[in-house]
Amino acid sequence: MLYNVPRWGSRQFGKNVNNILFYTYLQAGLMREEEQTTMTRARIRDLGITIGTYPTGTYNAITDVPGVLVGHETIISDEGRTARTGVTMIVPRDGGIWADHAFAGYFSFNGCGEMTGLPWITEAGLIHTPIGITNTGSVGIVRDALCAYPIEEAARFAVPPSIASTWTGSLPVVAETWDGWLNDIDAFHVTKEHAFQALQNAHGGAVEEGNVGGGTGMICHEFKGGIGTSSRVVKYPHDSYTVGVLVQSNYGNRRHLSIDGVPVGRELDYSLVASPWIEPPKGGSIIIIVATDAPLIAVQCQRLARRATVGLARVGGMGFNGSGDIFLAFATGNHLPFGAQGPIDLRMLPTTSWTPSSRLSLKRLKKPS
Amino acid sequence: MLYNVPRWGSRQFGKNVNNILFYTYLQAGLMREEEQTTMTRARIRDLGITIGTYPTGTYNAITDVPGVLVGHETIISDEGRTARTGVTMIVPRDGGIWADHAFAGYFSFNGCGEMTGLPWITEAGLIHTPIGITNTGSVGIVRDALCAYPIEEAARFAVPPSIASTWTGSLPVVAETWDGWLNDIDAFHVTKEHAFQALQNAHGGAVEEGNVGGGTGMICHEFKGGIGTSSRVVKYPHDSYTVGVLVQSNYGNRRHLSIDGVPVGRELDYSLVASPWIEPPKGGSIIIIVATDAPLIAVQCQRLARRATVGLARVGGMGFNGSGDIFLAFATGNHLPFGAQGPIDLRMLPTTSWTPSSRLSLKRLKKPS
Amino acid sequence: MLYNVPRWGSRQFGKNVNNILFYTYLQAGLMREEEQTTMTRARIRDLGITIGTYPTGTYNAITDVPGVLVGHETIISDEGRTARTGVTMIVPRDGGIWADHAFAGYFSFNGCGEMTGLPWITEAGLIHTPIGITNTGSVGIVRDALCAYPIEEAARFAVPPSIASTWTGSLPVVAETWDGWLNDIDAFHVTKEHAFQALQNAHGGAVEEGNVGGGTGMICHEFKGGIGTSSRVVKYPHDSYTVGVLVQSNYGNRRHLSIDGVPVGRELDYSLVASPWIEPPKGGSIIIIVATDAPLIAVQCQRLARRATVGLARVGGMGFNGSGDIFLAFATGNHLPFGAQGPIDLRMLPTTSWTPSSRLSLKRLKKPS
Amino acid sequence: MLYNVPRWGSRQFGKNVNNILFYTYLQAGLMREEEQTTMTRARIRDLGITIGTYPTGTYNAITDVPGVLVGHETIISDEGRTARTGVTMIVPRDGGIWADHAFAGYFSFNGCGEMTGLPWITEAGLIHTPIGITNTGSVGIVRDALCAYPIEEAARFAVPPSIASTWTGSLPVVAETWDGWLNDIDAFHVTKEHAFQALQNAHGGAVEEGNVGGGTGMICHEFKGGIGTSSRVVKYPHDSYTVGVLVQSNYGNRRHLSIDGVPVGRELDYSLVASPWIEPPKGGSIIIIVATDAPLIAVQCQRLARRATVGLARVGGMGFNGSGDIFLAFATGNHLPFGAQGPIDLRMLPTTSWTPSSRLSLKRLKKPS
Repeated sequence: MLYNVPRWGSRQFGKNVNNILFYTYLQAGLMREEEQTTMTRARIRDLGITIGTYPTGTYNAITDVPGVLVGHETIISDEGRTARTGVTMIVPRDGGIWADHAFAGYFSFNGCGEMTGLPWITEAGLIHTPIGITNTGSVGIVRDALCAYPIEEAARFAVPPSIASTWTGSLPVVAETWDGWLNDIDAFHVTKEHAFQALQNAHGGAVEEGNVGGGTGMICHEFKGGIGTSSRVVKYPHDSYTVGVLVQSNYGNRRHLSIDGVPVGRELDYSLVASPWIEPPKGGSIIIIVATDAPLIAVQCQRLARRATVGLARVGGMGFNGSGDIFLAFATGNHLPFGAQGPIDLRMLPTTSWTPSSRLSLKRLKKPS
Repeated sequence: MLYNVPRWGSRQFGKNVNNILFYTYLQAGLMREEEQTTMTRARIRDLGITIGTYPTGTYNAITDVPGVLVGHETIISDEGRTARTGVTMIVPRDGGIWADHAFAGYFSFNGCGEMTGLPWITEAGLIHTPIGITNTGSVGIVRDALCAYPIEEAARFAVPPSIASTWTGSLPVVAETWDGWLNDIDAFHVTKEHAFQALQNAHGGAVEEGNVGGGTGMICHEFKGGIGTSSRVVKYPHDSYTVGVLVQSNYGNRRHLSIDGVPVGRELDYSLVASPWIEPPKGGSIIIIVATDAPLIAVQCQRLARRATVGLARVGGMGFNGSGDIFLAFATGNHLPFGAQGPIDLRMLPTTSWTPSSRLSLKRLKKPS
Repeated sequence: MLYNVPRWGSRQFGKNVNNILFYTYLQAGLMREEEQTTMTRARIRDLGITIGTYPTGTYNAITDVPGVLVGHETIISDEGRTARTGVTMIVPRDGGIWADHAFAGYFSFNGCGEMTGLPWITEAGLIHTPIGITNTGSVGIVRDALCAYPIEEAARFAVPPSIASTWTGSLPVVAETWDGWLNDIDAFHVTKEHAFQALQNAHGGAVEEGNVGGGTGMICHEFKGGIGTSSRVVKYPHDSYTVGVLVQSNYGNRRHLSIDGVPVGRELDYSLVASPWIEPPKGGSIIIIVATDAPLIAVQCQRLARRATVGLARVGGMGFNGSGDIFLAFATGNHLPFGAQGPIDLRMLPTTSWTPSSRLSLKRLKKPS
Repeated sequence: MLYNVPRWGSRQFGKNVNNILFYTYLQAGLMREEEQTTMTRARIRDLGITIGTYPTGTYNAITDVPGVLVGHETIISDEGRTARTGVTMIVPRDGGIWADHAFAGYFSFNGCGEMTGLPWITEAGLIHTPIGITNTGSVGIVRDALCAYPIEEAARFAVPPSIASTWTGSLPVVAETWDGWLNDIDAFHVTKEHAFQALQNAHGGAVEEGNVGGGTGMICHEFKGGIGTSSRVVKYPHDSYTVGVLVQSNYGNRRHLSIDGVPVGRELDYSLVASPWIEPPKGGSIIIIVATDAPLIAVQCQRLARRATVGLARVGGMGFNGSGDIFLAFATGNHLPFGAQGPIDLRMLPTTSWTPSSRLSLKRLKKPS
């Protein structure tokens, strides 16, 4: 996001936000304690709220899509310049994405934000690296780190040398939201090593949510925001597929917040729960990553990405001028080997039977659940 | 095209153009006599000019792509209001396109023109009807005719009743250029029956070029223009594919005309060969249809369409403000049955080995050859 | 829309739908009696429901945008083949649009539909004709009618001869939804004369809603749908602008219907209010036209069009595979004279202060209100 | 660029390329000595070749557009890992771009490359920072440097504190081509300081071409490539405008090289002038930046960018699979102040009279001239 942003003020500010929210209902789902308190977090389903009708995957997380890993590197410090920031990496194919590309498509609902790698996604409909999410001023360093990783580091994911040797020519996808309200973003805390570490931390199973990785310093509808994830399973006669979503949210006015159709934002009056802002920001962004193991091709990934808009709209987003609301969808159901010479065999969900899967995916965007 | 167009004036004007050009070198390749004279036409290769290095298909025509048919309906009349117009239909899969869709993509280099059906091509990357080309004021009637054809007419192409019964919901692709210089376009000569007849006339093998079908009243670089076609064959270790192109040209200043890199337009001075215009038009359009039997998917068809720009640029087009330079590419190498329920098996030329085919295709655009 | 559409069956079917709905709560807002019954219609505000916080214009209609006229031509017949269809025209600038163009932008949320004129809107960001809406099989004839109107008809809107004389080169915008459930669409009822008549009928002030014009045979969330309109006024320190919306709705499952955040669709059980379908259609489309007198430029119109998605999402649309969810926004706050030679003076709402207006406009999409 | 790239091998390789080319005709225009030899360089016009008919600006450079500055930082080293790389910055409005934004539009002819900042250019049609060009692996660091510059450095361009304070939210435009043939790109030579220095070096007047800045390690049609620039002036009755172009070229097979329509590439046989490659690379990229002081708006900048394709096609580019052929056009003829609240007055060249300017601009792309 770009314009007229309230500035990060002081460490006190960040603390206040968390103190205020500590006792609120919503913090259970939306915030995560920073300093290892013993607060018990609940996800929205733990609170008895079920969004949509499709069953979730095992962890109700993007990692329910087979092979999708998530790694966070969280940067929290009050020494010197305040740091509340980090990097999140989504790693498709258990790290095999460098050698086996995946179809992808994106949609920019409101483009006051950055997502690198867009020309190649448009041209070929492919991603060939993990996907990074961080803050606005660190998009570049994380992007270059993804170019350097196969060359300099092979501990976690061993990229074949024949591929690593050409990797500076790669075109990684890295997106951002602006954490300058809670983080001293002018300090440029994120380094290449943080990006590498986020990759090293990648794992399947349950995903840390809230104040972690790229989401560490983010807000959402005037509450603490950050990383959220969920998944749904859709069954066809011939097969069953998982759609997973991970968001980094950093947007929204409180009065627009809606949970499963209930306008809770209007009810959470400022007299009841104070806001750290005199006037809440008009902008703010959300990055939405949708993953599926369905055998989609590139144009179908574009469709899936576009549908994330519906999920955002129903939670309370509306694409303010200063929002970077940019969505990426990728599908691992087809294999596209690096350097393939002959024709590649693909499968494709037909356009006609594809509707249930798209409807499913947007339901899932009512995050975090 | 839209703005400040010189008007069709009189029948005399059309005659003059043809008389003037009758003796020119270029008319051999670019024009076609209207009133059944006995002039012998030559294609550019007959004149010893070979463009590019790839071999042509059998007929050096879009019909060299297996299953692609072309049908023209030419409307020429000097009774009442002058008519020099018509309809051209490109029919993929020997007419099986209604039941077996094909991947497609388009590119609008300069969008002062019309091509219907674009939202569905963008959304699904598919075409499901023949492609029509006609004049600007008749795009609609030809488009609706393609909706009506499976319902009302089954003589030439029998569309299965289960498909025909839903056909008013179809989204046909019809494009245009403006023939108001040689045709009394305000008379709206084209009818649904003409569109049907163009389909009835569809055939493989050698394609009529120049003054036929949608190209009847068109001009090109101040000479007589219209329909042109060519093809090339590209061999891979694993297979060999044909790329065919058909254009309806109606654009260009003479001085920009270049043939195989030779700026012949500069040499054909007005003192040598007169022009019907005091000041030649600044606009004018070209529709380029690219077909291939290579197993491309939708995004690859978009790439192929975009490359048509290079062919146009090398002949002398530059996207004037009033040009409708809109290109469509489709690929029959995959089969996408209407109403498919389960996953469809596809093949895809890999991105890496795809370069030769794209380079090939644009060479072919140096039309007509 | 394209695939697997339930067919229009019999005249009885159409009647049943209307009988069933006659006693429902929602028909008050969503349907309109066809044969001049004495039923009193209410708009949603008459029922005490206020959506959003901005004030409406005088008529809560797109016609509150100064100079915007709406004309319907409704085709209802039970003689011969059943007709429940028509044409709606939105006429900017009191009909001066032919001589004074307007900035415009579009967004296709799901492109299983048709909107003609898209290449020029993309290229120049301009519209230069009234906008037509009709059924799927009639898009072409209405489009060609808009080319012919200035040449053949000047009763209602006198187009200057210098402009009319080039008008077959024009690129009109016509969109559609598929009324084959209630209308015998295979009969192709719409003629050029109907399109002309819709223009003749154009007027400002209160707009007929529901079963009129292009909306005559449309459905919405399993109830009777069709034309809906509303408007809002947004005040800036420097000025105040109106944003108006007109939709032709033909989509939706009942269970997804939500009114101002209340999931009424879930409550209106089939035991309470029967549905004419055993299984409701999965597709269906909506065309949304947004008009404003704010001084926006072309890219800003694209943004406005894209935001219509939020309104649709909140009512219950989600872009099913078979949906043609295509949105057009135009802005009359700048004047772009046909044939202008020198630089044109424009005004532009700055990007920074533009947020309120965009938020406003999408609220308005909760239609009909 | 991405796939199957020949690798930078040894310092010897780079030397050989330059030795071989030192005596060739073309190096006069295309190369620039690296180690301060006394070779006299000639631009193409010095050799008697005039491309197009419009007059050039004073310096035949992008800097002829009033207020446009160019700064290079060149990194050449044979100590340790070989460095032949750098950064080029194009600075609009004499550095006032941070406070006074400019309309812009882009076109990706073949998207195997990176240009950051695209979502905001698409959304708002604006740029608000200088434009950087560097190598593929350094896009990120240069992009983040442009975020940091107003905060950390104010020596050359003093950005007002009210703007600088929000600058980590900015969305800079940085593009790249891959210099791994002549540069040890895996060494990631470029630092934030290099990017800052390129800004410090920015100046008007004559622009260094060839082996400088981002172009240091680039090739072109198997010769030494890099930075090239030119300009043309177009006169209207009401005013006169300059269009300037700067390219960073790194693409092409020799046999496709064409200069002003003459296929010189075919004539420069390998027996005459050897090539460093056994088989020349199939990919390679070109970044084209077009600047003008004409009062264009955003959609018109998109059109201008798209036309760069024609220039590229005529020199011999054709959008190989591995090419990042991405073009950006910006126009300084309108002023868009940061933080403007009320409507902004603009001027716009009308669409009708805009044709000459677009034709002009592509002529200019026959670079370097």
